Amino acid sequence: MREFDFIAAIRRMLGPPRRPVLVGVGDDAAVLAGSRRAEVVTTDTQIEGIHFRREWQPARSVGARAAEITLSDLAAMGARPRALFAALHLPFSIRARDALAVMRGIASAAERHACPVAGGNVAGYHGPLALTLTAIGELPAGRKAFLRSGARPGDGIFVTGPPGLARIGLETLQRTRRPVPRALRPAVRKYLEPRARFEEIEFLAASVRIGAVIDLSDGLAGDLGHVLEESEVGAELEPSVPSSYREACVLLGLDPMACMLGPSDDYELLFTAAKPLTEKLMQAFRRRFRRELWRVGRITKKRGLWLRLPGGGLRVIEPRSYEHRFG
Amino acid sequence: MREFDFIAAIRRMLGPPRRPVLVGVGDDAAVLAGSRRAEVVTTDTQIEGIHFRREWQPARSVGARAAEITLSDLAAMGARPRALFAALHLPFSIRARDALAVMRGIASAAERHACPVAGGNVAGYHGPLALTLTAIGELPAGRKAFLRSGARPGDGIFVTGPPGLARIGLETLQRTRRPVPRALRPAVRKYLEPRARFEEIEFLAASVRIGAVIDLSDGLAGDLGHVLEESEVGAELEPSVPSSYREACVLLGLDPMACMLGPSDDYELLFTAAKPLTEKLMQAFRRRFRRELWRVGRITKKRGLWLRLPGGGLRVIEPRSYEHRFG
Repeated sequence: MREFDFIAAIRRMLGPPRRPVLVGVGDDAAVLAGSRRAEVVTTDTQIEGIHFRREWQPARSVGARAAEITLSDLAAMGARPRALFAALHLPFSIRARDALAVMRGIASAAERHACPVAGGNVAGYHGPLALTLTAIGELPAGRKAFLRSGARPGDGIFVTGPPGLARIGLETLQRTRRPVPRALRPAVRKYLEPRARFEEIEFLAASVRIGAVIDLSDGLAGDLGHVLEESEVGAELEPSVPSSYREACVLLGLDPMACMLGPSDDYELLFTAAKPLTEKLMQAFRRRFRRELWRVGRITKKRGLWLRLPGGGLRVIEPRSYEHRFG
Repeated sequence: MREFDFIAAIRRMLGPPRRPVLVGVGDDAAVLAGSRRAEVVTTDTQIEGIHFRREWQPARSVGARAAEITLSDLAAMGARPRALFAALHLPFSIRARDALAVMRGIASAAERHACPVAGGNVAGYHGPLALTLTAIGELPAGRKAFLRSGARPGDGIFVTGPPGLARIGLETLQRTRRPVPRALRPAVRKYLEPRARFEEIEFLAASVRIGAVIDLSDGLAGDLGHVLEESEVGAELEPSVPSSYREACVLLGLDPMACMLGPSDDYELLFTAAKPLTEKLMQAFRRRFRRELWRVGRITKKRGLWLRLPGGGLRVIEPRSYEHRFG
């Protein structure tokens, strides 16, 4: 397929620009209506073989996942999305219909969050399929961004869904043959189909004073480690392992607590809140989102990341994040 | 080098955030101060082996070139830069100091245009060095974006520098051994060190009613072709070949007119203007920028792209652009 045909197809796919996009695909740049509110901008890359595999999910789903992961960073700042930009690095060997399906996945996920795709770039090359997405959002009136540095001693630590489930999904995809055993399917779905938690954070911010927020892509210990570093505090974790993890972990020979704490691409939001969340709020969250809100521990003045053991003792944990290496 | 060490080094390199950046590198996303003015956003990718070669220029210069090329799209819209975001895809084999030099080049070029680097992403992979940059700008008060669709029959067509010079530079790099002959050095420099033409377009917009604008990356015929298509008009070209091209083209065995019209990464701005530019303005431009403002032809109601021959006849030209292909 030729570049300009591809761009023309994308332009038709996206339709005419709509607010806040004044000029969309087809010029040197996009034009967005001005906004008095503070803007939030994030860029994220998904590379085949590193961040996803095309044999694990259809091209459209690859695109949707990349869009959700990028938008998740806006949700973690308490921002609402305004526009998404997609730079595609396409292997020369990709089928045109797969390239278009990736784009359709990006656009449909963005649509789910009322966020128009306003522009991007396309280049063919000798390399893996790579998607670099940039999302622009804005903070609602009167809100300051939820930063990693916002945690204070005494805050409770919560997660908008069970941490580590995506790790179980990833291990399943890496180890087991298809079809995936029924007990492991929710975990696989969690890994392949993350969702940016805009509604969840809005729901919570309406009732609770939010401290720090981060989205879980490195796992509970790794991402909480970023919060502790930026906030200059420590934390004590006392997470209860979801009962559903036990069967899944037996099937895979994994330690459930290691899954909860270690690297995992959950894209749930981890947040801290000054006052204890009421049982009523926890219930309302459960009813609305059909998911448990997880209380995993509390922020301490004493630095370091500590795990409360069943016997009552404390064990120090080394935050472990996935890190890209080169050179 | 480890990812978080690299990001920490970039954070030190960039220093504390400054307006309009409120939160820069180190959180889930960057925060920019709100702007009432229409925003302009562009994303562009430079890939090793496709868009640049590391044996042709130092790593720092690769980064600077990518930043200038991305910012050039803002200039072509009549926007002023506010912030730049850099997503780096780093081959596992890259030396850490080269990766940092790329970033330093990006930051220094952005600095030249008073544009802070506010965030980005870094990933290691098996593939070529690739830089995806996203620039956010805003339109000055009272200005509408300069679009490709703004050309009207009767407009003159101008370029902020000699079109095709970068093509001669590229051919030089591809064909000749080092050291580069003196007569070819300006062309090589033009190819390797493009500059976003913010000052030029501001200077011109202060005196002339600007019609369409596009930055030259596909060459005069190719990029003018985009303008003609979006503006639903035609054009007649009567360009004079710069005298300096003749010696260079003899050395390389190239046709000077083909260099002027064909694919070339000049990143000069091509613009149309309703009234003839006065000799006084042309002189003022020359004095200020030490470069000729090129009048290359005029917009016609009759569709198609036509070249006025020395004998007075007209020849139709096929706009030819570099197109990425895949699939």
